[in-house]
Amino acid sequence: MEQSLKKIEVEFLEYLKKMAAYNEALSLIFWDMRTGAPKKGIDQRSEVVGILSQEVFQMSISEKMADFIQALENVDGLSEITKKSVLECKKEYERNTKIPKEEYKEYVILQSKAESVWEEAKEKSDFEMFRPYLEKLVEFNKKFIGYWSSIQSATNVGNKYDLLLDIYEPGITVKLLDETFAKLRKNIVPLVHKITESPSKPKTDFLFKQFPKEKQRAFSLHVLKHMGYDFDAGRLDETVHPFAITLNRGDVRVTTKYDESDFRTAVFGTIHEGGHALYEQNISEDLVGTPLCDGTSMGIHESQSLFWENFVARDYHFWVYFFDILKSYSTEQFRDVSISDFYRGINEAKPSLIRIEADELTYPLHVIVRYEIEKGLFNDEIHVKDLPAIWNEKMEEYLGVTPKNDGEGVLQDVHWAGGSFGYFPSYALGYIYAAQFRATMRKELTNYDELLKTGNLLPIKGWLNNNIHQYGKLKKPLEILNDVTGEGLNADYLIQYLEEKYRMIYNL
Amino acid sequence: MEQSLKKIEVEFLEYLKKMAAYNEALSLIFWDMRTGAPKKGIDQRSEVVGILSQEVFQMSISEKMADFIQALENVDGLSEITKKSVLECKKEYERNTKIPKEEYKEYVILQSKAESVWEEAKEKSDFEMFRPYLEKLVEFNKKFIGYWSSIQSATNVGNKYDLLLDIYEPGITVKLLDETFAKLRKNIVPLVHKITESPSKPKTDFLFKQFPKEKQRAFSLHVLKHMGYDFDAGRLDETVHPFAITLNRGDVRVTTKYDESDFRTAVFGTIHEGGHALYEQNISEDLVGTPLCDGTSMGIHESQSLFWENFVARDYHFWVYFFDILKSYSTEQFRDVSISDFYRGINEAKPSLIRIEADELTYPLHVIVRYEIEKGLFNDEIHVKDLPAIWNEKMEEYLGVTPKNDGEGVLQDVHWAGGSFGYFPSYALGYIYAAQFRATMRKELTNYDELLKTGNLLPIKGWLNNNIHQYGKLKKPLEILNDVTGEGLNADYLIQYLEEKYRMIYNL
Repeated sequence: MEQSLKKIEVEFLEYLKKMAAYNEALSLIFWDMRTGAPKKGIDQRSEVVGILSQEVFQMSISEKMADFIQALENVDGLSEITKKSVLECKKEYERNTKIPKEEYKEYVILQSKAESVWEEAKEKSDFEMFRPYLEKLVEFNKKFIGYWSSIQSATNVGNKYDLLLDIYEPGITVKLLDETFAKLRKNIVPLVHKITESPSKPKTDFLFKQFPKEKQRAFSLHVLKHMGYDFDAGRLDETVHPFAITLNRGDVRVTTKYDESDFRTAVFGTIHEGGHALYEQNISEDLVGTPLCDGTSMGIHESQSLFWENFVARDYHFWVYFFDILKSYSTEQFRDVSISDFYRGINEAKPSLIRIEADELTYPLHVIVRYEIEKGLFNDEIHVKDLPAIWNEKMEEYLGVTPKNDGEGVLQDVHWAGGSFGYFPSYALGYIYAAQFRATMRKELTNYDELLKTGNLLPIKGWLNNNIHQYGKLKKPLEILNDVTGEGLNADYLIQYLEEKYRMIYNL
Repeated sequence: MEQSLKKIEVEFLEYLKKMAAYNEALSLIFWDMRTGAPKKGIDQRSEVVGILSQEVFQMSISEKMADFIQALENVDGLSEITKKSVLECKKEYERNTKIPKEEYKEYVILQSKAESVWEEAKEKSDFEMFRPYLEKLVEFNKKFIGYWSSIQSATNVGNKYDLLLDIYEPGITVKLLDETFAKLRKNIVPLVHKITESPSKPKTDFLFKQFPKEKQRAFSLHVLKHMGYDFDAGRLDETVHPFAITLNRGDVRVTTKYDESDFRTAVFGTIHEGGHALYEQNISEDLVGTPLCDGTSMGIHESQSLFWENFVARDYHFWVYFFDILKSYSTEQFRDVSISDFYRGINEAKPSLIRIEADELTYPLHVIVRYEIEKGLFNDEIHVKDLPAIWNEKMEEYLGVTPKNDGEGVLQDVHWAGGSFGYFPSYALGYIYAAQFRATMRKELTNYDELLKTGNLLPIKGWLNNNIHQYGKLKKPLEILNDVTGEGLNADYLIQYLEEKYRMIYNL
């Protein structure tokens, strides 16, 4: 490689490091604002966020960035990390520069306005109030799709909606999702009906007893430690909306919230966020300071949190080890509860209206409703004005429940108000990926159930580290899936898992 | 004012806002690193600090900044805030650009090296190990003084050392300090001798009983609230080395540390930092986003913390109200202690070796030792190699104690290792200012003792807000002093306070 090229590569990596530094500062600000920043400082702090975000955004679309991309794209002799970093930057650059500046500015203002209108509309269950904003957001995104259709780096190119999916889940297309989600729906809907009709319901009263917050925290920490979450590279704090956040790979924090009359909120919430955090704590050190030092997609990220939350912590064997420990932290609430009643209780499934409160069986159906609507919107088959009716029909059809009002229906999620279209499918994809990973893992770690039974979770963590975490964004989601499982997206594993588990729990 | 000038002013203020935003991010990082950031993230975080600091530094010496200064300096029709912001920026600009780039870089590396060598040297009480670094640091600063001697904005211009004093305490000169410190020394030294010889010593055994940390925290919060510290614009956390830090004026945080066998560490420490924080929470909102939104000098800042720590919280009347409250938070340690024994106990004074552990009577002498040495160094009257001997002589002469080794002598403070020469005098100046403010305040709030006795501290806070805090850097230290007290620097008030108080406590 020529000297001059080497020099450009070094400069490029320095430039990326600077962007990473700004992002780290922004992440800390975000974390701080949600874990105890005094309220009178928030306005000024928001200005700081604006200034730093603008700075990073400018760096991503600068002439300098364009020069880097041009000089380093498709050049021999660069490291794989540099090559793939260039591609990441190009994707960002193209997306961000295709939209005319003025239009993007208008859009950002609309987003922020729409979010606050949405909040009020949801409160009042008044869809008409939110409708004009949602219409404009959809129109903008349709225009963006037009601009983006010429992007070389987009990996999905069949359906218009593919260009939105590509933002969150590169490689995933409408074609693939139609097939996969249809199969999932076809299998889960009848199962949900059956459990609804089953006379054999789990007991759940013991779940809702007083469990002191400090004890919940202590138990959550106990589990996180067993999972291999590194407390020298993280911490657990309290927030209203739990999240995991990476400042850098040596500082990946989780937050949780506590409900003293339902310990599941904190315990499963912490394990879920812990799953996200394990991913980011274990990305290869070589990727630090590049855009590759991140989860490869929303879906793969969600596969990690759901793996731990559902496939580990909602598994019977996990509680063989942890139930006694949970008892030792709790007061008297489980005294007369058998482990199998406990297991059935925490796995109660029933159709409900709110996605984020849904159990693991019905959850995918909530996502499928949203997917079908988004796809319809961007293919001009559904109009915004008809959303409440369509929403309610689909909920009735798939879950057998109908919202009493739009606040608990079409207005429940913030995503659309923020202009995030194409994001929802990742939630279900994560679940499907996770079930596929689980099937492979159980072949390779043949003592899987034994590991859970003995609280020996580190081999599971190690397997995820080796097969998934270390790569960061070096591999695309479907590439990881293929490398690990030897096949593409396949809902069968999730279906089989849910069938087996829920037939057993509900005595079907 | 012309249109174009108006436009430059607006741009200048935007530019300052951006610098303030970077500084806010840096402050948050600093706070976070000291209140619980996980250790494995620190290396990467330090890089972020480096990148952001470099960015702010570059902005302060950029051509753009030079243009702003040139365009806006000495121009009619600008607001006072703009005018004074220009002067602040000019001072920074001149200081930072006078030093040749390469030389400054060398110096920064030396500083960082010197600090780690100092740490080891202090540990081993090995001055010779640190000497070559200290010599180089002094040489660099002598050169800097040479570069700075042509700076127009320096307000002190008599002695060479004045240019170092000017960094921390604009307007303060060797001439003024020589006179003031000599008077202080002449009065305190004999007083210290007298109390040392007095047979009437305070009892102190009750101070060192077990006082649970959580209770100390609760009492500290109680006092902070009474002081008018705004918890919607701040918070109290735990650190190894306590500090107050401003993220923005709506977010001024304090930290403290707890010693379960000496409650004074946390209580007086929190009150001290609370005094700093009250200053910054109450700077005028008009100054937000400019370099004027800050304490006007190290000395005035210290005057605020010392005012609360010594003149409020070490006053007898304060405890008339707070002693019972303290008792209610403590266990049994004060059960048989009278308020006057308590008051005498917390005000015990005795010569000691370590500045940061010194009581309020002997503290100024520690500072004077350092001042005299720094002045000697920069006027070529003292050589680095002779420092240990000179240090020990002065300690013996002023305080009657001699360090057993250099670790508890000349090597005790980090300041010189960090290249901070000219900083120490501010500690004593703050104390002198505070005593002058107190004298004026007691004339204006004639019921001062009564306010303390009833725990009604808000009028005291209000007085400090109106007379000092609101101005930020709009007024220079001596300007504030003059406006408030009607006179210049005058050690008489402090001397009188100390004489009265300690004659009483020690029955002299």
